Amino acid sequence: MPEPEFIAGFHAIGKERYHHLHRFHLLMHEGKLTHGQLQAWALNRYYYQSRIPMKDAAILARSDDPSFRMAWRKRLIDHDGDGTKPGGIEKWLKLVEATGLPRMQAVRGEGILPATRFAVEAYVHFVSTRTHLEAVASSLTELFSRDLISLRVDRLLQHYPWLSGGLEYFSGRLTQAPEDSEFALNWVVKHARTREEQDSAHDALRAKCDILWAQLDALYYAYVNPGWPPPGAFQPSDL
Amino acid sequence: MPEPEFIAGFHAIGKERYHHLHRFHLLMHEGKLTHGQLQAWALNRYYYQSRIPMKDAAILARSDDPSFRMAWRKRLIDHDGDGTKPGGIEKWLKLVEATGLPRMQAVRGEGILPATRFAVEAYVHFVSTRTHLEAVASSLTELFSRDLISLRVDRLLQHYPWLSGGLEYFSGRLTQAPEDSEFALNWVVKHARTREEQDSAHDALRAKCDILWAQLDALYYAYVNPGWPPPGAFQPSDL
Repeated sequence: MPEPEFIAGFHAIGKERYHHLHRFHLLMHEGKLTHGQLQAWALNRYYYQSRIPMKDAAILARSDDPSFRMAWRKRLIDHDGDGTKPGGIEKWLKLVEATGLPRMQAVRGEGILPATRFAVEAYVHFVSTRTHLEAVASSLTELFSRDLISLRVDRLLQHYPWLSGGLEYFSGRLTQAPEDSEFALNWVVKHARTREEQDSAHDALRAKCDILWAQLDALYYAYVNPGWPPPGAFQPSDL
Repeated sequence: MPEPEFIAGFHAIGKERYHHLHRFHLLMHEGKLTHGQLQAWALNRYYYQSRIPMKDAAILARSDDPSFRMAWRKRLIDHDGDGTKPGGIEKWLKLVEATGLPRMQAVRGEGILPATRFAVEAYVHFVSTRTHLEAVASSLTELFSRDLISLRVDRLLQHYPWLSGGLEYFSGRLTQAPEDSEFALNWVVKHARTREEQDSAHDALRAKCDILWAQLDALYYAYVNPGWPPPGAFQPSDL
């Protein structure tokens, strides 16, 4: 497949399957989520955030190329911090606190949906067991995250101003994600040498979209419609 | 914990969390599922069935005790067959065909819900990475499956008589599951020597209940209410 077509393929997949299309996000951006639904979102999504550096370490661990590892290392710093500036995980805990939930509930994963756990584990497992190319290609949802995040910050401030102290995570991602996806896309283009490898990279992005989508499906169904959290899951006081 | 209390703990967990309580099963048993919903169930559940021998092989692989391995080996035969009599997987394919879907769609996993895949992978991963005790204890949902299966066969025949050619899987399980759970329970009781080990065995059963429940949640939400299959998933013709 010629390079422009290969790259366009990623964008076509995002247009169809990235979770900016998910009803949970549409409701969020229309200001139609309740306080409890936003709590459930922040709590469950924290589990995803907390596994991102483990996922990135698994990808790092697969590379015998110091320059790849050095570039990828940036992601660990972005999420775990550098000991003085807080990383993405700490910032997401601020968001959890801004929703009124105790940070330790998120840290302990108390009441998160089993489906959240399964989808996130599937992601870590995917990057650990598939090819290095597929592992890197699965990160390419970051090609689409900038637009979603900038819309989100705008709408969260508009509709849920009480969240404003918890949005620092997103401002960081506005610059981090495009840097990361640019590196990853160049690397994938360079290393997908056969048609099969190119197809496997597209499939990896589809798989990652499924992982993000399944997390919002679980939230939507447990907390919006029909609104039936499974046994043991977080029960918002307004549900 | 005294032995009777330890054993009663498993039964209490089943009473609260086993998927006989799930709304999808309640609808099934009331005859309220559509043809397409039963297709989606058979198709998705096939993925679970197909991974059972891989799960059991992972448990087998953890044991250095030939008598344990010999007892557990029975499960591989039950599901994979012995080359003359069909095993559970082949019987489940008959059920898929009885719903009108091609067996190859199930074998290929075409259109199964990503959430099904994630939950089932989480099960295989659980038994591969947790302690041998937890791995065995997670099988104890079989303590409860006999009652569910005998009710199910009864109600499927009553409400969906066109499925009658596909129910052989369940008749086999009526005797296999109680044999298996009796062995597993005795083994767990004998090998959980500390309070912590006993608690971990209870937690393992809870985790397994979550895995079963999440599969039905995904089916319910994608195909019953609200009825939104994620991108790429099976679309019944009557949805």
